[in-house]
Amino acid sequence: MTNAGNELTSLITSTPQEGRDLAVKLARKSIAAIQTDPEIRKSLRKSYAEDTAQLIASAQVVAVEFQTIAMANNYWK
Amino acid sequence: MTNAGNELTSLITSTPQEGRDLAVKLARKSIAAIQTDPEIRKSLRKSYAEDTAQLIASAQVVAVEFQTIAMANNYWK
Amino acid sequence: MTNAGNELTSLITSTPQEGRDLAVKLARKSIAAIQTDPEIRKSLRKSYAEDTAQLIASAQVVAVEFQTIAMANNYWK
Amino acid sequence: MTNAGNELTSLITSTPQEGRDLAVKLARKSIAAIQTDPEIRKSLRKSYAEDTAQLIASAQVVAVEFQTIAMANNYWK
Amino acid sequence: MTNAGNELTSLITSTPQEGRDLAVKLARKSIAAIQTDPEIRKSLRKSYAEDTAQLIASAQVVAVEFQTIAMANNYWK
Amino acid sequence: MTNAGNELTSLITSTPQEGRDLAVKLARKSIAAIQTDPEIRKSLRKSYAEDTAQLIASAQVVAVEFQTIAMANNYWK
Repeated sequence: MTNAGNELTSLITSTPQEGRDLAVKLARKSIAAIQTDPEIRKSLRKSYAEDTAQLIASAQVVAVEFQTIAMANNYWK
Repeated sequence: MTNAGNELTSLITSTPQEGRDLAVKLARKSIAAIQTDPEIRKSLRKSYAEDTAQLIASAQVVAVEFQTIAMANNYWK
Repeated sequence: MTNAGNELTSLITSTPQEGRDLAVKLARKSIAAIQTDPEIRKSLRKSYAEDTAQLIASAQVVAVEFQTIAMANNYWK
Repeated sequence: MTNAGNELTSLITSTPQEGRDLAVKLARKSIAAIQTDPEIRKSLRKSYAEDTAQLIASAQVVAVEFQTIAMANNYWK
Repeated sequence: MTNAGNELTSLITSTPQEGRDLAVKLARKSIAAIQTDPEIRKSLRKSYAEDTAQLIASAQVVAVEFQTIAMANNYWK
Repeated sequence: MTNAGNELTSLITSTPQEGRDLAVKLARKSIAAIQTDPEIRKSLRKSYAEDTAQLIASAQVVAVEFQTIAMANNYWK
């Protein structure tokens, strides 16, 4: 996975696990694109990490991002 | 990305990062198509940028728009 | 786009922008199919156009409708 | 569209508009499969037809069902 | 449909209607996988079967499961 | 299914049922990636396992993850 910086340079990953990690990263970056203040993001973090409805909604975002990544990698077949 | 104006002229982008940027832009334009008053949109902005449930819902919209853009670009392969 | 009337006759559009417009139109028509009274729809309009959670949910509907339209148009490639 | 009865016999429709109609019908049948009492469904109807959040959520269901139907019909091309 | 037992052995169904039935079944099994106590599930049933927002959310799950099943059956064409 | 450890090494499963099991596992791992404290996750568990809205939302995540897995396995055909 060659997306160490802030720019997304590729959807290709070596393994499905790296694909999952990239999906989580993309979900986080979407939120950072809307709430650009890192201090506010930090203060908000506790509110969703202990709210199961929001944890489930976050998992839904990861699922959609992962579907795209899995397609890009031809499902690592 | 040749979508500098208000019209969406193409889903093709040079890089995955530009695809992410376009996905965020499309999500924003959808909201502007429904709430057409820019002053009201501005006043609403704070309410969702500090509400984690809405930030997560916004990230979901970006994920679906990005899936379409990624397909259009054959995943930048 | 040859969908000027009330009937959806085609998913094919000339440009991506017309595809976006059609996606918004389809989302609106779904709501009109459920709430058939135009007066009630009009009275409801303010309640969602100033509620960011509902604006984001509307943008999600547009994103899914647009994905279908983009596929139909082979992403306007 | 040859789905006049209660059984879904085909996803193929003559026109995109018939595809939209089938999508709405499938969404309604899903709800009837869970809440099987038609009297209760009738009494519930008003509560969602005047609640914009629920109207938007219903439109989301229609959008996903329509995507499947559009794929089945090769987008009526 | 040869999924009479508790194990999902195939996504292939004879008709679209059997595909719908399987989609509802899969949605129910997902919930049973998380809330494993059948008595609690039974007691919860009334709360969502009379709550339109939850009925609509359930219909959304069925729509996504059905999309997968329809793809698996090449849309019964 | 060769994903016994914490790493996701493959999306390929022997049967559709194993695909369902993997979908549930991926959904759970997404939540664990966001709420990393296992004690807090345990304490949160009761709150969503008895809340039908959250059970339905969880089923939606499973449906999307399963769609990806089903595609990867060519629908076990």
